[in-house]
Amino acid sequence: MRVIGIDPGLRNLGWGVIDVDGVRMRHVGNGICHSDPKGTLAARLLALHTGLSAVVARFAPDTAAVEQTFVNKDAVATLKLGSARGIALLVPAQAGLEVGEYAPNAVKKAVVGVGKAAKEQVDHMVRMQLPGVQIEGPDAADALAIAICHAFHCQSARQLAIAGGGAR
Amino acid sequence: MRVIGIDPGLRNLGWGVIDVDGVRMRHVGNGICHSDPKGTLAARLLALHTGLSAVVARFAPDTAAVEQTFVNKDAVATLKLGSARGIALLVPAQAGLEVGEYAPNAVKKAVVGVGKAAKEQVDHMVRMQLPGVQIEGPDAADALAIAICHAFHCQSARQLAIAGGGAR
Repeated sequence: MRVIGIDPGLRNLGWGVIDVDGVRMRHVGNGICHSDPKGTLAARLLALHTGLSAVVARFAPDTAAVEQTFVNKDAVATLKLGSARGIALLVPAQAGLEVGEYAPNAVKKAVVGVGKAAKEQVDHMVRMQLPGVQIEGPDAADALAIAICHAFHCQSARQLAIAGGGAR
Repeated sequence: MRVIGIDPGLRNLGWGVIDVDGVRMRHVGNGICHSDPKGTLAARLLALHTGLSAVVARFAPDTAAVEQTFVNKDAVATLKLGSARGIALLVPAQAGLEVGEYAPNAVKKAVVGVGKAAKEQVDHMVRMQLPGVQIEGPDAADALAIAICHAFHCQSARQLAIAGGGAR
């Protein structure tokens, strides 16, 4: 199963792709889609859509997950972040993928074991899970963490289904 | 010049298309793109993208405008509205259109003459500007108001350009 994780942001939208085979995970690719802060909001969203669509077309993931970010700074900033999240959700949906959504604490709990882990711990565990990975930046590291979280979640769901099936 | 106005919302995304010839305006079409509240956020954004893309393809506007909405209810609601706004901005940008953005007060000031006009006044003035129009609902009325505001704005910009050109 190939998983894409997406860390939505208007300036930097991180993405990370991993292959999952049972409990084994393998890094496939990661990177960041940028938008020009000097552009209009519409132009920036178009740039993110074009960039992320190319990533999805290139790696052809089977499933996707996007971080549920919250911003309390102000309504304008939250609205802008929301528009970037809209693109992050739309692109995999356009490719026919199911899109999981995870709160930041759920991602940290899945990857590090505790919901309040520091960014460095998440980064460290991502590198442990995906030996030899070269990470393009913090947003790409977060995206890989989201992909790992989604892989764990899909595995648990499958094991529960198998256990349920065996009990019948 | 054909203008599309868009009032972004996750459940109901209103759109309105008008033709503008000098000071004359003509209603072309209006409606609402819906998304199923029971669907995932990704599925809902996909439905809005598909619906609005079909409207833009059908009416082939020359320019677009989207309302700058603000929600102070809570960050989660604002983030969701932002994701719908992202789609509203993306679709015309994908069609190669410039996308204007107007605050609600700017729309009211352009259509009614005062920034704090009631919804009913806006609705009344939209019907005055576009005689015989059949409006699909409040969100479509707002979208037509945004289109009218954008038309006024484009005309003023053009007149300023002409005046500037004459002074040279």
